[in-house]
Amino acid sequence: MRAMQTDEHGGLRLRTDMPTPEPGVGQVRVRVRATAVNRADLMQRAGSYPAPADAPADILGLEYAGEVDALGSCVKEVAVGQRVFGLVGGGSYAEYVVVPERALSPMPEGMSFEDAAALPEAFLTAYDAMVSQGGLAAGMCVLVHAAASGVGTAAVQIARAIGAQVIATARTEEKLAQVKALGADHVICVQDASFAERVLAVRPAGVDVVLELVGGNYVSEDLRALAPLGRIVLVGLVGGRAAEIDLGLVLKKRARVMGTVLRARPLEEKIAIHQVLKRQLVPLFERGLLVPVIDQVLELADADAAHQRMKQNLGTGKLVLRV
Amino acid sequence: MRAMQTDEHGGLRLRTDMPTPEPGVGQVRVRVRATAVNRADLMQRAGSYPAPADAPADILGLEYAGEVDALGSCVKEVAVGQRVFGLVGGGSYAEYVVVPERALSPMPEGMSFEDAAALPEAFLTAYDAMVSQGGLAAGMCVLVHAAASGVGTAAVQIARAIGAQVIATARTEEKLAQVKALGADHVICVQDASFAERVLAVRPAGVDVVLELVGGNYVSEDLRALAPLGRIVLVGLVGGRAAEIDLGLVLKKRARVMGTVLRARPLEEKIAIHQVLKRQLVPLFERGLLVPVIDQVLELADADAAHQRMKQNLGTGKLVLRV
Repeated sequence: MRAMQTDEHGGLRLRTDMPTPEPGVGQVRVRVRATAVNRADLMQRAGSYPAPADAPADILGLEYAGEVDALGSCVKEVAVGQRVFGLVGGGSYAEYVVVPERALSPMPEGMSFEDAAALPEAFLTAYDAMVSQGGLAAGMCVLVHAAASGVGTAAVQIARAIGAQVIATARTEEKLAQVKALGADHVICVQDASFAERVLAVRPAGVDVVLELVGGNYVSEDLRALAPLGRIVLVGLVGGRAAEIDLGLVLKKRARVMGTVLRARPLEEKIAIHQVLKRQLVPLFERGLLVPVIDQVLELADADAAHQRMKQNLGTGKLVLRV
Repeated sequence: MRAMQTDEHGGLRLRTDMPTPEPGVGQVRVRVRATAVNRADLMQRAGSYPAPADAPADILGLEYAGEVDALGSCVKEVAVGQRVFGLVGGGSYAEYVVVPERALSPMPEGMSFEDAAALPEAFLTAYDAMVSQGGLAAGMCVLVHAAASGVGTAAVQIARAIGAQVIATARTEEKLAQVKALGADHVICVQDASFAERVLAVRPAGVDVVLELVGGNYVSEDLRALAPLGRIVLVGLVGGRAAEIDLGLVLKKRARVMGTVLRARPLEEKIAIHQVLKRQLVPLFERGLLVPVIDQVLELADADAAHQRMKQNLGTGKLVLRV
């Protein structure tokens, strides 16, 4: 099959002779029509985030949209030709992926493959972190950092769709205008990791949940901006690994700081995540309450150009690769 | 009534003319027979931890055991003369306290007032932090710091009683011998806040829960000693407020750092806490699976001496004051 292969020096090469995977018991093979770029792809390419044991070591890609192409034995719920999408531990920069039939979702009715490929990582990461783990619900307030990113734009929309108030931060006014158009109630331009006072000016009681996509010195500001019993859900660390925390605030506010990653989860959790995609998110897309946010659609052959664009943090939303 | 009053300079004076509180709707008055010392008392006396609005500003004391002395209107479940114990927001260094009838518990059968007064703060703090919030359950492993303290000795016993493995730390071999006698599976003598490697030598997969009674630079070591999905429940900060955290570990381990305090909780949570005392803990005391750990019993008039002893961290278990 065709696939974009990484080499040990971080190079990318489009191959046409990679072995096509075969579905096993309870698994299906999907003809990938589109995939999308994640920051984890850049880290994996740079050698700092190896693929898990159940994914190809040399093909990037964490999400896909496509058609079911072949069934393994004992598959009950999925048919050949069905349009499906979801997450994989790796390997979706390729013509085919093999996934367990329980760990996929039918695509929203009438959606294109390019749009569908932009959804799984961004919307599942946002929903899982902010709602399933952070406990965000109607009437509460969430602070979303890096709100113009793939996960950020998803989070703003989800929060709005479930009746929560959204305060969003980004680094440029241009990005904030786009985030505001997606439904953020308040936007804050952050240049120097200082935002707590501006958040508290908007929401004096503090925010209930922080979706933390930056990390580093943002976390101590998050704690200051947090309401009693608030949760900081840590999803990304582009701002650095080291944080100085005031434990006195953690104690006094009965705050929670929680880290989360989707990729390393065991099968039972991946199945649960895809049930969220199918039951919670697909209906919201079909009702138009959520929309994919796409920066650019490129060809798989242009994966490197897409990676360079992500590194520069220029766009708003996802970079999709057509396969 | 008699009560030990604090003045604005941190002094303590035994008064005999303090106004006796009257029970309101749904409240009962308890003739306190014993109370106990908490680190919060020392902080309040030093002016750094004011009493909550619903507690007397000038009488210390967070727990009591005694007899119901008078009933307010609409009290249904409690009778005069009943032996009860529990937590208050303050004011138990006194002959009488008034509490809501839902926020108390009958004492364990056959237990003395001195023993009962040693239980509420220590065992409820430990149970709530370690089990209710930290999710400790049978088969898991908990790391208990300051294990010879009131909360520590309670935590070791509770963990053992519910089928969890216990690794306990303290600063002296003498304290560790007492902790071991209470049921700790492994003990570690900690002088310099370095313990993660020794914990991992005992439990290579890491610990599921840390009961963090020290804070400060212990927290970064906790993170290293933690299993994937592990929880660090922060209860005390005698080691300091500032912590440097490796957010990369929080993310990779999907760890949770959570702060908790009992005293500042609203009524509905205080009621829930006393239901835990009544339903979860009293039966374990009556079956002998948990025992009070008492350092010394003194008279209320000797409260200052008890405080000096606590400051020196000499004893194992609780300092009880007879009223």
